[in-house]
Amino acid sequence: MKISFISIFPNFIDAFKNHSIIRKSIKEGLVEIENINLRDFATKKKGHVDDYIYGGGPGMLLLIEPVVNAIESVKQENSHVILLGPRGKRFNQSKAIELSTTKEHIILICGHYEGIDSRIKNYIDEELSIGDFIITGGEMAAMIVADAIVRLIPGVINQESIESETFDKNRVEYDQYSKPLDFRGDKVPEVLTCGNHGLIREWKKRNSIENTLDYIYKRKPNKEAKDGN
Amino acid sequence: MKISFISIFPNFIDAFKNHSIIRKSIKEGLVEIENINLRDFATKKKGHVDDYIYGGGPGMLLLIEPVVNAIESVKQENSHVILLGPRGKRFNQSKAIELSTTKEHIILICGHYEGIDSRIKNYIDEELSIGDFIITGGEMAAMIVADAIVRLIPGVINQESIESETFDKNRVEYDQYSKPLDFRGDKVPEVLTCGNHGLIREWKKRNSIENTLDYIYKRKPNKEAKDGN
Repeated sequence: MKISFISIFPNFIDAFKNHSIIRKSIKEGLVEIENINLRDFATKKKGHVDDYIYGGGPGMLLLIEPVVNAIESVKQENSHVILLGPRGKRFNQSKAIELSTTKEHIILICGHYEGIDSRIKNYIDEELSIGDFIITGGEMAAMIVADAIVRLIPGVINQESIESETFDKNRVEYDQYSKPLDFRGDKVPEVLTCGNHGLIREWKKRNSIENTLDYIYKRKPNKEAKDGN
Repeated sequence: MKISFISIFPNFIDAFKNHSIIRKSIKEGLVEIENINLRDFATKKKGHVDDYIYGGGPGMLLLIEPVVNAIESVKQENSHVILLGPRGKRFNQSKAIELSTTKEHIILICGHYEGIDSRIKNYIDEELSIGDFIITGGEMAAMIVADAIVRLIPGVINQESIESETFDKNRVEYDQYSKPLDFRGDKVPEVLTCGNHGLIREWKKRNSIENTLDYIYKRKPNKEAKDGN
């Protein structure tokens, strides 16, 4: 698996590469992360990758030429080109699993400023959005997509962790506790330290169902409206 | 406005601080970003902030003591404490606006490993989730929340940009084009360079409505099911 980032903030992408399981996965040869500086593909003056918008409008747009040239510099036959943008299909865990299991090379294009010249749509395989909020650049969205994919690559994290986690089996995880047993009077449920594995399993299951109901309730639009959000 | 990050990856948060409008906003005194290393609050051995989970289970949990000590080291009367986690209420643009306009100090707690000891719920004001996908750490989610908030602070970006953007007025933006007029045969719509502002306004409005319909269609679960996602 190889993931290529195309962005105007290669230092930020570098910090992503050097943190946590991404760093570990690269070191162990489980994934290759390529960090492409869009400014290296400037066609007009050096480093100049944005310009004003035809027909007027605030801000600047990333130019089509450097972006397409950057894509073509790394694109292979097996590459899947993704643009991160607010109009894209919603990224979710199913999509992460699909990308992680079916793609060999993913190119992530990080928009910035007001976005990218709309003709980019002819050069991508899909546009993905991570949520209904506005951020100043696609870099963080691309990191999230990359992280969600990389952690699913066999060998990257404990398989047991993947199997027990939130969103799998459509159930929220049970509450988890570590040391100390008593933190300022707030205690770990006794059953978890009783040693009876049947009782522990039973508690985890019940607590997971309770958390799931709580989660569904919190997400209900009516509830949100009542809360004033 | 002040935003404090509590995480085990301060270098990654530093890179976020040094990029794009975040860097600019800090420089101009519009926002203060505080970068707290959770490991500085280790209570057992130096740097040790995680441990096994009571009752068994894969992975490690962030310990409650260092996290609460880190929160208390920066918490003021006006602080709003947010945990980034998969069970939280969904973060969206309304939430970004609410936080940006009503809070003076936001503390963002970035979970990692299997999560944080569940007793953390007694020390936070709310839990936020950025989407239905699993990532290895809360750092990227916290950056997204911070970025969405900071760009709404008056003076950070062009007010006109905020007013014209996607998700505002429940409409998707119109297509945008910059140089060149003809890119490999793919041309900028002629109307955008005709100089007739009435016609341009009309085109932008129609195109925005078309994009909105397209966006709604793409998001429909039935459509997704048919597409095999």
